[in-house]
Amino acid sequence: MRLSERITQITGGGSDGWDVFYRARRMLSEGQAVTELTIGEHDTRTDPSILRAMELSARNGHTGYAMVPGTDLLRDTVAARVQTRTGVPTFRNNVLITPGGQAALFAAHMAVCDPGDVGLYLDPYYATYPGTIRGVGAVARAVQTPADDAFQPQAERIDAAAEGAVSLLINTPNNPTGVVYSRQSLGAVADVCKRRDLWLISDEVYDTQVWDGEHLSPRALPDMAERTLVVGSMSKSHAMTGSRCGWVVGPEEVIAHLINLATHTTYGVPGFVQDASSFALTAGVELEEKIAAPFRRRRSLAMDILASQNIVGLVPAQGAMYLMLDIRATGMSGDAFANALLDAHKIAVMPGESFGKAAAGHIRVAMTVADERFAVALKTLCEFASHLARKHAAE
Amino acid sequence: MRLSERITQITGGGSDGWDVFYRARRMLSEGQAVTELTIGEHDTRTDPSILRAMELSARNGHTGYAMVPGTDLLRDTVAARVQTRTGVPTFRNNVLITPGGQAALFAAHMAVCDPGDVGLYLDPYYATYPGTIRGVGAVARAVQTPADDAFQPQAERIDAAAEGAVSLLINTPNNPTGVVYSRQSLGAVADVCKRRDLWLISDEVYDTQVWDGEHLSPRALPDMAERTLVVGSMSKSHAMTGSRCGWVVGPEEVIAHLINLATHTTYGVPGFVQDASSFALTAGVELEEKIAAPFRRRRSLAMDILASQNIVGLVPAQGAMYLMLDIRATGMSGDAFANALLDAHKIAVMPGESFGKAAAGHIRVAMTVADERFAVALKTLCEFASHLARKHAAE
Repeated sequence: MRLSERITQITGGGSDGWDVFYRARRMLSEGQAVTELTIGEHDTRTDPSILRAMELSARNGHTGYAMVPGTDLLRDTVAARVQTRTGVPTFRNNVLITPGGQAALFAAHMAVCDPGDVGLYLDPYYATYPGTIRGVGAVARAVQTPADDAFQPQAERIDAAAEGAVSLLINTPNNPTGVVYSRQSLGAVADVCKRRDLWLISDEVYDTQVWDGEHLSPRALPDMAERTLVVGSMSKSHAMTGSRCGWVVGPEEVIAHLINLATHTTYGVPGFVQDASSFALTAGVELEEKIAAPFRRRRSLAMDILASQNIVGLVPAQGAMYLMLDIRATGMSGDAFANALLDAHKIAVMPGESFGKAAAGHIRVAMTVADERFAVALKTLCEFASHLARKHAAE
Repeated sequence: MRLSERITQITGGGSDGWDVFYRARRMLSEGQAVTELTIGEHDTRTDPSILRAMELSARNGHTGYAMVPGTDLLRDTVAARVQTRTGVPTFRNNVLITPGGQAALFAAHMAVCDPGDVGLYLDPYYATYPGTIRGVGAVARAVQTPADDAFQPQAERIDAAAEGAVSLLINTPNNPTGVVYSRQSLGAVADVCKRRDLWLISDEVYDTQVWDGEHLSPRALPDMAERTLVVGSMSKSHAMTGSRCGWVVGPEEVIAHLINLATHTTYGVPGFVQDASSFALTAGVELEEKIAAPFRRRRSLAMDILASQNIVGLVPAQGAMYLMLDIRATGMSGDAFANALLDAHKIAVMPGESFGKAAAGHIRVAMTVADERFAVALKTLCEFASHLARKHAAE
């Protein structure tokens, strides 16, 4: 039986650099003591206070169909939050609640890309980006943001790729690099979007995890609110990855169409999950700080450890729960280094190559294990790299 | 800013016959005592035992990312259930868990329809069907199953519409008609699917609500498992509409591609919702009977009430939580009758025309209010129809 061309092409084919990840999972399932630094998931669970709010909502009967666009309460809460944090006037009708940030990414591309249109994304990229664009039938085209540009987007590179493009997907604070896009970078991105008439799809799910500088939403830049779709989520800010609750914020007209889409794709998000999310978003900044704190601490630990050696380079770790490390002094690819590290020390990290071309010769380290174990792993990693670099220099 | 053609065309445009529904909602929100018989939602909430299972799961830490295809436990539970109920060998790899039945409908069409392909659906239809097909960029083409055919599908009509089609979407037990497709009808449907090389997308979310005869899954017919995608859900069988948990059952190869799609569209279903669903599905048939019982009782009440008059015709009410009533003796359209009934008696029902062309001159009554109130409303409806019919005869 014939399947749709679109669905068979989502993954793009070819090796994806995730072999080391699957190998680590297998070793773990065999009972081996692997230090797992691959995936962006908190080592804490959803806060009991949030679970209590969810239980209360369900017990009180919020178990039937919720309104498809989201509950009035959560839409208003998200709108107020976005307005406070960005200064852009934002109302209920600018918000669609989705079952998670990934659903929001997909919906945003469904809204603006027709089959055959080009959707741009920046490399290095979060694993699902090109497949999300291909999933709506569009052509996924990468724009490089290489290490030499400090992983910041450059207008010229975007402009050079913009032929046939209708949208540009960006992510700041950035996964996998840990970079926060500067005001200057975002200004240039905004200019090229206006010049080339591109929608800007701005994934801001790490906006509460900024360690250095500040998060700027490009929707807040002049004349950008009308062409920007912001993707947000409860996952990272509130350790609610498993609750699948996110949103798209954008122009009213787009949201109206996205509500039609939601009616035909997901039919809303559980009311009790939305009530828990509303609770969490209004529980005060302490809760968010509590969830971000471990990553802030470990980032400090990492800065100290890395400062004491000069083999492994640290890309400025400005935000998100990752470190991007430059291991080119070893003469190895990120992939080869990650596999060797897993074999030698049972430490699992992601090769930069898993995230495209621009992060080759790098590895991504998720700061998602307890501080002491994290520090030990990072020291081991540095010693291992130093050993390999000496070997490489001697060759 | 330009939006995608696809998203602007999802709803198809034009009046959709849902005016009476929105009018009823408005009257209710103004505090008027409307008897609301429009929507397929239980008048009971999710059972406390199911909510306890959900709480336990979340408290035990199942709040992180769940496996994208679904938990092993729920996939195995659904597979075993489907195998028991249909006799078709069904394994974990035949099952994708989705955030609700609507997401499963969308995913199934994404798997088989490319832009420009024709997706067939039967009229009368559940409200989202044509928009779901248009949502994947395909052309939605209706095949009539008129009252004169007892709302059963006819192979000749499907065959006549099959040019350019890649799929056929059916629903048994049927919403809106309450009809259960006979073995003969389904055999004919299967034959035409094989002859015209069509995927059969079989929406079976009402499979626990059969009052007369028995539910047959067309996947169990000879050589149909390889071309059938079954859509199921916790919503109707376990009064879990708000939990958004459903599934697609189909050939392993299709499920593998659908897992790729899920990675890029929804990224899994909350683990605690899946654990609650696994609990519910294994809690025994008593729980399902308890949830189906009110509709079974009210259907009996309705049969008695309708037997005592001869103006309003009852389409054989074999399954699902609806009655389809023939009000053509009044000389009115379903739409005109429903509006008049709402004005005169504050009883809200859905015009047959809301569900396409084939149910014109009919109304759909959801059996979703308490027995006594339901009986009173139905008697009032019959008297009102009788009054209108006499008036019509006198004209």
